[in-house]
Amino acid sequence: MIKTAFQTSVLLLTTLATTVFASESSVLTKAQRAELQQLTTTASTSDLSYQIVESLTTEVGARMIGTEGDKRAIKWAVDKMNALGFDKVWTEEVAHFQWIRGDVEAKITAPFPQPIKAIALGESVGTGEQGIEADVVHFATLADLEAADATRVDGKIVFVSYRMERLKTGRGYGKAVGARVRGASVAAEKGAVGFIMRSVGTANNRLAHTGITRYQNDERRIPAVALSNPDADLLINQLKRNKPVRFFLKVTAMRNEVVTVKGANVIGEITGSQWPEQIVALGAHLDSWDVGTGAIDDGLGVGMVMATAAHIGQLDKRPKRTIRVILFAGEEVGLLGAKQYLIDHQATLKDHVIAAEWDFGLGKIYSMQANVAEPAIPAIDELASYLAPLGVAYNTANQGRGQSDMGLITDQGVPAMNFTPDGLRYFDIHHTENDTLDKVVPEDLQQNTAVYTIFAYFAAQADVEFRKAN
Amino acid sequence: MIKTAFQTSVLLLTTLATTVFASESSVLTKAQRAELQQLTTTASTSDLSYQIVESLTTEVGARMIGTEGDKRAIKWAVDKMNALGFDKVWTEEVAHFQWIRGDVEAKITAPFPQPIKAIALGESVGTGEQGIEADVVHFATLADLEAADATRVDGKIVFVSYRMERLKTGRGYGKAVGARVRGASVAAEKGAVGFIMRSVGTANNRLAHTGITRYQNDERRIPAVALSNPDADLLINQLKRNKPVRFFLKVTAMRNEVVTVKGANVIGEITGSQWPEQIVALGAHLDSWDVGTGAIDDGLGVGMVMATAAHIGQLDKRPKRTIRVILFAGEEVGLLGAKQYLIDHQATLKDHVIAAEWDFGLGKIYSMQANVAEPAIPAIDELASYLAPLGVAYNTANQGRGQSDMGLITDQGVPAMNFTPDGLRYFDIHHTENDTLDKVVPEDLQQNTAVYTIFAYFAAQADVEFRKAN
Repeated sequence: MIKTAFQTSVLLLTTLATTVFASESSVLTKAQRAELQQLTTTASTSDLSYQIVESLTTEVGARMIGTEGDKRAIKWAVDKMNALGFDKVWTEEVAHFQWIRGDVEAKITAPFPQPIKAIALGESVGTGEQGIEADVVHFATLADLEAADATRVDGKIVFVSYRMERLKTGRGYGKAVGARVRGASVAAEKGAVGFIMRSVGTANNRLAHTGITRYQNDERRIPAVALSNPDADLLINQLKRNKPVRFFLKVTAMRNEVVTVKGANVIGEITGSQWPEQIVALGAHLDSWDVGTGAIDDGLGVGMVMATAAHIGQLDKRPKRTIRVILFAGEEVGLLGAKQYLIDHQATLKDHVIAAEWDFGLGKIYSMQANVAEPAIPAIDELASYLAPLGVAYNTANQGRGQSDMGLITDQGVPAMNFTPDGLRYFDIHHTENDTLDKVVPEDLQQNTAVYTIFAYFAAQADVEFRKAN
Repeated sequence: MIKTAFQTSVLLLTTLATTVFASESSVLTKAQRAELQQLTTTASTSDLSYQIVESLTTEVGARMIGTEGDKRAIKWAVDKMNALGFDKVWTEEVAHFQWIRGDVEAKITAPFPQPIKAIALGESVGTGEQGIEADVVHFATLADLEAADATRVDGKIVFVSYRMERLKTGRGYGKAVGARVRGASVAAEKGAVGFIMRSVGTANNRLAHTGITRYQNDERRIPAVALSNPDADLLINQLKRNKPVRFFLKVTAMRNEVVTVKGANVIGEITGSQWPEQIVALGAHLDSWDVGTGAIDDGLGVGMVMATAAHIGQLDKRPKRTIRVILFAGEEVGLLGAKQYLIDHQATLKDHVIAAEWDFGLGKIYSMQANVAEPAIPAIDELASYLAPLGVAYNTANQGRGQSDMGLITDQGVPAMNFTPDGLRYFDIHHTENDTLDKVVPEDLQQNTAVYTIFAYFAAQADVEFRKAN
């Protein structure tokens, strides 16, 4: 294997870090530091995490809860964990109602008829076979819609055109996603017959972004779709002509709330040699939206955490604590797997010594932040010194939260580790048909996996109480 | 208007060029050079060409010959030329058979079932309602397919996976497009039941690229579709597992060869003041594929040549020669408008003093090459000196050819001017749903329009015989 510049620099610098960091008070022993050094070399040169994503996207593909793809994904995950040498592998059932995406036909019918690329928001109702046609009323933001008089909205199709900002931190998402989650409900309360919005996404592709929408009032549900960015631009350009713009929308999506579908959290462990009941929890979500092949959301998270455990499982001896990989079910439709996990594991939550998830895409990790008890901070300092050679800066605020699913777990008092990647490209792809294997950057994924491997090994070996006193 | 860096540098440098280039032998008079200077300022600061593309894509959109969109485009073009102050505007009918795109349903059915994003190649036949399902036989290139024994191909769906190179010159297209044009015919001759190929395109979007395919043998026509790049990758990854890969294809496209549809070349003139019968011909094609809104192919060509004529039409006096803008019909389905133009204008082809088309996208022009009589070369040298400040290098090979439609015209002995743009991004977008207004770079389009304006003015004023002696 030809070493990349990334690999070479990491190996040199990690050698330095694991050699130099050797005070009397260090958490890892000299032998453990040597083992960590070896493990870092392995994770920084292996393509195992990429191979896992390749396998998942090629052999399974899209896997929304309740679909055949999800069933195949669960079997795939169990088989893969077993093949990778996990000590224990099992599934825990998660239930949901059935939602079928169907198709969307959208078009401007006046003043200038043109087809529009749109996608149903997750769990939207349909329009019925005949579709709906109405004048468009345009709001720049959800706040503008909220402030509008119902007389402007009644009988109309509401269009919210707010465009998500493209930022390294990904923070544009938080400002944009409210319209997706609540927009249809707000519009419906004011009498709208349909809700269309600019996709929560940052690329100019004719691929609209899906994602969950929520109905606040079950009596007033209206169909909700996202337009691609270029289609939202086109609609705005027609609106600028100051003539009424008519819109036709046919959505064949179906919420079958009397039908229960089953998914599963898939869980695998590398069992601890000294304190097997103590759990270092690594999460990702197994489900994806039913578009794309779920490569970046969250196939590469699946690849990272499975490869992390597998690398550690290849050591001569199991670390002291158990490393538990949790592949959550139904994250996309409302963190269903995490909610079920909290129910199923309430009694042993106190034994989860620290937790981290990966559900934020395809860039290199550039920052870390823990959330641990004060006396454990020197241990995190030491961990930070091992990660610094991989380009990971240390945010000492000690207010980290688990990502997505694991956020619910760490909100219950489980200590957290949060790693922040370069999120610039993530929302170009997220929740679209473009979420495919070619978007994964192997070198970035290698860095991500190396970071998780160092973290997991450290947490599993460190004789440190990370949990805050109650 | 805030001047861009491009505008400021062009204005300074053009002033220099038009002042300095003032030898006894110069083609333009001092007064004409002053007028050219003013015109350059106008074209380098105006957003007229962008506004024309915005109008065409917003008010018309897709416009394949034979569709309602094409009819609207013809009316739009006539109205727009009149509004822009052209002296004469008319249309010339072009006929073709009817082709209806229909839909494509494509999927891998074994070993790992997954949906595939595909688009029918232009003028492909359909599969019938029941679709076809067969094993896939894979060839890396068209040449490999051509060399293959028919026994390997008979009864199969042929897949050609050659990937187009992404180059500034756009020359990867020529190497890749043969499979699109001829692949289905070669496969059919060997007994294939269907033809699927990697899109002739350079982006990793799940948007497949259409474009014309040709049947060599009317008795053996098989359905032909292009897969998006990520879908072609997925198919290859499944093929790598060394199990038979089954593929299902349903294409509802229809060739109605007994139905004639009508398009039209739309032609407008700024009539010459001294030699009105002598024509400087500026071309672009009005039709587009029926995906996207035809912004870059060839909406921006339409915008450039219409704005060029309009800028010149705003001068106090008409130039000596006529500037004729030809918006060709049916370029995408086989240069139909250009072929009809040659028939309709055979008698006056000798009066076309020079011709240029724009049908190559969205980058800045970086090179020019003429094809003129030897004695006219000093005049081209002078033109080159006016264009150099805009970043246009001068290729003195004197073997230029008109682009696309205009290639047929210049092949008949009409002198040619060819301008070469940075083509790196063009084939990311070309012939896909992504061909929309947001892809147009206003500053690049401004430069393109300035180049065409300088060229057209120069050619219309220069008392030079560009045509080679017969």
